[in-house]
Amino acid sequence: MEIKELGEFGLIHRLTKDAEPKNPSTLKGVGDDCTVLSYPDRKVLVTTDMLMEGVHFDLTYNNMAQLGYKSAMVNLSDIFAMNGQPRQLLVSIALSKRFKVEDLDDFYRGLHAACDKWGVDIVGGDTCPSLTGLAISITCIGEAEEKDIVYRSGANETDLVCVSGDLGAAYMGLQLLEREKSVYYQQLDKINAKIRKANSEGNKALVKHLQEEGMKLTDFQPDFAGKEYLIERQLKPEARGDIIQLLRENNIRPTAMMDISDGLSSELIHICKQSHCGCRIYEKNIPIDYQTAVTAEEFNMNVTTCAMNGGEDYELLFTCPIGDHDKLDALESKGIHQIGYITKEELGCRLISRGDGEEFDITAQGWALGGAGEEK
Amino acid sequence: MEIKELGEFGLIHRLTKDAEPKNPSTLKGVGDDCTVLSYPDRKVLVTTDMLMEGVHFDLTYNNMAQLGYKSAMVNLSDIFAMNGQPRQLLVSIALSKRFKVEDLDDFYRGLHAACDKWGVDIVGGDTCPSLTGLAISITCIGEAEEKDIVYRSGANETDLVCVSGDLGAAYMGLQLLEREKSVYYQQLDKINAKIRKANSEGNKALVKHLQEEGMKLTDFQPDFAGKEYLIERQLKPEARGDIIQLLRENNIRPTAMMDISDGLSSELIHICKQSHCGCRIYEKNIPIDYQTAVTAEEFNMNVTTCAMNGGEDYELLFTCPIGDHDKLDALESKGIHQIGYITKEELGCRLISRGDGEEFDITAQGWALGGAGEEK
Repeated sequence: MEIKELGEFGLIHRLTKDAEPKNPSTLKGVGDDCTVLSYPDRKVLVTTDMLMEGVHFDLTYNNMAQLGYKSAMVNLSDIFAMNGQPRQLLVSIALSKRFKVEDLDDFYRGLHAACDKWGVDIVGGDTCPSLTGLAISITCIGEAEEKDIVYRSGANETDLVCVSGDLGAAYMGLQLLEREKSVYYQQLDKINAKIRKANSEGNKALVKHLQEEGMKLTDFQPDFAGKEYLIERQLKPEARGDIIQLLRENNIRPTAMMDISDGLSSELIHICKQSHCGCRIYEKNIPIDYQTAVTAEEFNMNVTTCAMNGGEDYELLFTCPIGDHDKLDALESKGIHQIGYITKEELGCRLISRGDGEEFDITAQGWALGGAGEEK
Repeated sequence: MEIKELGEFGLIHRLTKDAEPKNPSTLKGVGDDCTVLSYPDRKVLVTTDMLMEGVHFDLTYNNMAQLGYKSAMVNLSDIFAMNGQPRQLLVSIALSKRFKVEDLDDFYRGLHAACDKWGVDIVGGDTCPSLTGLAISITCIGEAEEKDIVYRSGANETDLVCVSGDLGAAYMGLQLLEREKSVYYQQLDKINAKIRKANSEGNKALVKHLQEEGMKLTDFQPDFAGKEYLIERQLKPEARGDIIQLLRENNIRPTAMMDISDGLSSELIHICKQSHCGCRIYEKNIPIDYQTAVTAEEFNMNVTTCAMNGGEDYELLFTCPIGDHDKLDALESKGIHQIGYITKEELGCRLISRGDGEEFDITAQGWALGGAGEEK
């Protein structure tokens, strides 16, 4: 269905009609100039993220439902990274004419799946036209008691540095998708060239056969057998609210915390800069999944570099007082890994290599306009 | 300066370094995963808007500072429309390579000018690349006491319908800008055709002369003498926080309220639908500026249609109990106009014409993808 058939208000109604508020803080959701929220004795956490087609996602391999899911999750992840609970989500989406109502339905299905997982209400937003491509902006609102909020600036000398889950998998997933995409376009180009040739030779039967071959390629459905984990980490990341709960249940309160969206190196530098400290990270302790390691090998890439700079893992990076060491040890099997420690600022941020214990400076790359797909 | 010279974090620092929080509710602004706000005994209002290049604005005639100002004002307007006070703003902006750091500086200058006017803190956001054009997403957070919040749904039969300021001016401003833009492109096309001809004839002196003529056109700087008000209403709208204050000082509490972004017709229908009522609006009472009327005449347009459907005036539309009639009368000179009254739902929304008192149904147009520039 064309979006203009429904009109703006019909569209908003269709997308939001089933959204029953689940949180007592949601007083008024969609349907007025503003959303009205109530946070009588807690602090309000707010985060916002923009996702642009061709920069943050590629609709060749992201479907709309996955995109909705990921858009929500990356914002929930920011609330968890402050040790808060996400409560409300506002969604703005700008679409060009090639998108249909069903695409928006799929997008909202993904959004709702992510929000339902963490009891978050979709309370408003904006839907508007775009001349080219798709632009998404999400704002997430959460809450926390003041004493529970964890900033980037709270790390202290001797604190342990921890990460959840494993790193580098989302980046390797992206490499796989990009490779298959380029194979797909090469095959398409070849068939198109053959069709042009057959056309110029007037070979109608061959043209028809080639067109059928081309149609078979139309759906980008490569076989990622054995690599499903990497693909899922890239296309359907999970915000680690479970880790926040686990730490709370074990009476561990991080001193500083961030989610890993730009890559471990970049986030370590943020925490150290804002906490006025340095760190030592043991290469051997960085958690890496077996599939990540094998695939990095295949691509002739250094797996540690992938884990340090890949980004988009949405795992949590946090620091804890050294006194929590035993409690943290007990959580190793639940995916909490101690990877290093915090030092005095003047000692800098350094990686201690696996083999000879040589130390390397940890450096981070920000984005440059029009850069690579793994940008935050 | 190229944006990549500064990098993402350098850029964020440059844009936010001077932002000292002005509101006690702003606990933590830019520089962590989330903004932290405190609203201990008030309700929180949240609104978000997306603005896309080529749909909501045209950089041929919007400069970046005006665009920043307008982007902020349209969001503040939504908070005022709930009878709240705006407090914090989050800004996300996606830019293609043609934008420089100085463009962002200009954009933020406009944002700050709007925010400073109403004591609003810029507390966060996102800056990222875009493959084509400029996309802006603003989230505004405000506060209100529960008893003060005015929804769209509170209008009652016999209530008076009021609007602030005057209507249709922003739309006529857009018509003027669009006309001058098309004249400008026609002139440019003519000169380019002459240059091609002179080139083909080898007349180098003429080519040089024509190129100089073309250069003079490069800056889109048409003369709008006498029409400045209309241009300013389009490019630099003001959120009517002053009207909110005025009503409060005069102990007038609207029963329903909205800001006029899509046009009076559309907003009247929203209020009537959500309040389950109808309305009668007197055409003769709709406030229209002299310049708006003259320019509508010039364009051979019906001025009432422009005022009813033009949009982007960002005036307030509200309803008040009939008992406030005398108090409202006294505010006529301060720009509050009574334009009609609320009826039973089954009587519909109708406009009573100036001449013979004939009644016409009020209808509204939502947006269609890729539609006209006046879309919200």
